[in-house]
Amino acid sequence: MANQRLGKQTLCFSTAPALLAWASVVGKKEGQGPLARWFDVVSQDTKFGQETWEKAESQMQKEALQRALQKAFLAPHQLHALCAGDLLNQCIGSSFAVRGQGVPFLGLYGACSTMSESLLVAAMMVDGGYAERAAAMTSSHFASAERQYRLPLEYGGQRTPTAQWTVTGAGCVLLGQGEGPVHVRTATIGQVIDKGISDANNMGSAMAPAAYETIRQHLEDTHRTPEDYDLIVTGDLGAVGSEILRDFFRRDGVTLGERYHDCGLMIFDRARQDVHAGGSGCGCCASVLCGPLLARMAAGELRRLLVCATGALLSPVSTQQGESIPAVCHAVELTTGGQKEG
Amino acid sequence: MANQRLGKQTLCFSTAPALLAWASVVGKKEGQGPLARWFDVVSQDTKFGQETWEKAESQMQKEALQRALQKAFLAPHQLHALCAGDLLNQCIGSSFAVRGQGVPFLGLYGACSTMSESLLVAAMMVDGGYAERAAAMTSSHFASAERQYRLPLEYGGQRTPTAQWTVTGAGCVLLGQGEGPVHVRTATIGQVIDKGISDANNMGSAMAPAAYETIRQHLEDTHRTPEDYDLIVTGDLGAVGSEILRDFFRRDGVTLGERYHDCGLMIFDRARQDVHAGGSGCGCCASVLCGPLLARMAAGELRRLLVCATGALLSPVSTQQGESIPAVCHAVELTTGGQKEG
Repeated sequence: MANQRLGKQTLCFSTAPALLAWASVVGKKEGQGPLARWFDVVSQDTKFGQETWEKAESQMQKEALQRALQKAFLAPHQLHALCAGDLLNQCIGSSFAVRGQGVPFLGLYGACSTMSESLLVAAMMVDGGYAERAAAMTSSHFASAERQYRLPLEYGGQRTPTAQWTVTGAGCVLLGQGEGPVHVRTATIGQVIDKGISDANNMGSAMAPAAYETIRQHLEDTHRTPEDYDLIVTGDLGAVGSEILRDFFRRDGVTLGERYHDCGLMIFDRARQDVHAGGSGCGCCASVLCGPLLARMAAGELRRLLVCATGALLSPVSTQQGESIPAVCHAVELTTGGQKEG
Repeated sequence: MANQRLGKQTLCFSTAPALLAWASVVGKKEGQGPLARWFDVVSQDTKFGQETWEKAESQMQKEALQRALQKAFLAPHQLHALCAGDLLNQCIGSSFAVRGQGVPFLGLYGACSTMSESLLVAAMMVDGGYAERAAAMTSSHFASAERQYRLPLEYGGQRTPTAQWTVTGAGCVLLGQGEGPVHVRTATIGQVIDKGISDANNMGSAMAPAAYETIRQHLEDTHRTPEDYDLIVTGDLGAVGSEILRDFFRRDGVTLGERYHDCGLMIFDRARQDVHAGGSGCGCCASVLCGPLLARMAAGELRRLLVCATGALLSPVSTQQGESIPAVCHAVELTTGGQKEG
C-alpha cells in the first residue's frame, strides 16, 4: 500500500500531476479591475447571452471548460472526471454546465473553497491513476449570489464596510499525467472550523480561522515555512479576513509579509471600484488562479504557490436560525515543472 | 503510473478498501416500515431533540457518524477524511454535523446520488493511500426537504401519484485499509444526463435514464452481466423510475428481474404507508445500505452488491426558470471479504 500522506492532513501527489491547460472567464466589473489583461474572456454582457443570472453563471462555466479544452486540444469525452461546484442552491451553475457533455461528473460543495477542493480531488484522481485527465472548475456570479444570499438588487440595500463583492467569474483547470508548465505537489484538506462569528456580512472574519488552521497545518505537515513559497494566496478573505490571518500568524511569531496575498484584494481596485472589503465568491479564487497566477507560474515568475481557497459553509436558513458560520479551507501546492520537491 | 481504470468510466480499487463499520439513523415513519429492525437508531422524535428540522437533519448525521465510529473503536480525529453532503441549501446538514469534530472534510453535492458518490471518493482516498481511514455520509429529512423544495407542510398540498416521500434518515460508512466483512471493488462515475423531463413531482422518470447509462456502462466496463451481482439497487427511483429502468434494459435484451431492487421501494410499505411512488432523498439509499443491505452482506447472504444512488440535479430556481431536470448516478461495487475479483 503506497502511503501518499504527509503528517496529519496533507496528501502527497508523488507523480505530480501536470496542469495541461486552464481558462478564466469574467464579467464587466472584473474586466475594469487591475487584473483585466490576464483573463481569457471578459464579457461586457453580465448575462453572457442568457435570460437569467443563474443561466449566465452556467454559461461562464461552459465557456471556461471549452476554452481550457481548446488550449489542450482535447474534447470533453477525453476527460475521465470533472470535479465542480458553485454557490447556487443545488449547485446548478455546475450541473447545467456539464449536462449532456459526456463527462463523468463529481459534484462538490465547499462554498468558496471549491477551487482548491476541486483541484485537490482532480489531482488525487490523476495521481492515483483513477483518471488520465481530470478537470477542476467553479464559478460565482454577483447577481445570482446577491439574489440568493442577500437582497434583490432592485432593493438597493446599503452594504456594510466588512461586506465583500461577489466576483462574476469562472475558472477551469485541466490536469493530467505527463508534462506541463505547472504541477500539483501536495494538498492539505481542511477541517470545519467555527469560532462563533454570526454576521453574514463579515465572511472574512468567519473564514480567517479556517485559513489559519489549514495553512498552519500544511506548513507543519510539510516541515516548511512561508519563505518556502513565492506566494501564498487565500481565496476571498478580503481586507478584514486577511488582516486577521496575518495577525494569527504574527502571534505564532510568523510574519507572512509580502509572500501572502488574497485573491479578493487582487481582483478589484478598492480605491476606485466600490467593493468595500474586496472580492469574494468561488469565482474569485478561480479566475485569479486561472488568470494571472498560473500565467505568472508558466512564465517562471512564481515557482511555488500555495492556493488556499476558503469557504463559509452557512446558508440563509442557518443564519435565520441563529447559527454561527462554519468555514473550511483547503490548500493546494503548485510548483513549476523544473522544481524538485522541497 | 498505476492504472486504476477499467474501460470508459470505471475505477478499480486494487487494494479493495474494507468497510470498517457503518451505522444508520432514521425517523418514526421509517421505523414503521418493513426494514425497521435493521436500523441502528429509530427516533420517535422526528426533530431529534433539536429546535428545527434542519438542525434535526444535522443531528442525524452526527449520530450516524458517532455510532459508526463507536463500532470501529475509533475517534473522529482518526479519520483522515470525511466525504459528505446532503440536499439542504449549502449542504448545512453535513457542514454543521462535522463542525469542530477535528476531521478533514470534503463536501460533496450529488443530490440523492451522494451515498454512492461519497463512498466512491472515500474508497479512492483509501485505495490510493491518501487516507488510512475515510468516512462517507449523507442524510435527508422529510420536513426540511418539503419546506425547501416543495410547500410548507402546513399547506397540506395534494401529492401527485408520481411523487415520492423523502426519507428521514442518515447513513455513515467508515472505510479503511485492511480487513472487514465487506470491501469496495470498483465504482463507475456517472455523467449528467437530461432527457427533458421537467415535472419536479416525477423525479423517478428524470433519474431513470442516468441510472440506466451508469449501470450499462458499469457492466460494459467490467465485462459483466446483471447475473454477476446478487443484487443491484438504485437509490430512489421509486415505482415509476424503476419500471422505466427495467424497460430500458429490456430493450437491450437484458432482464433485470429479481436481481434488481430500489431502496425507495424497500424502505416503505406502499400498501400501508401513504408514500405514493416510494421513498426518496439521500437518506433513502444511505439508511437502506447502512441498515439491511450491509447487514445481509456481513451475514454472507449477499456476496456482490452494486449500489447505484441517483440524484436529480435541479433546484426550485431552475424549475421556475423552465429548465428540465439533469440527473446523475454513480455505481459502487461491494463484495464480501472472501470473494475474488470477477
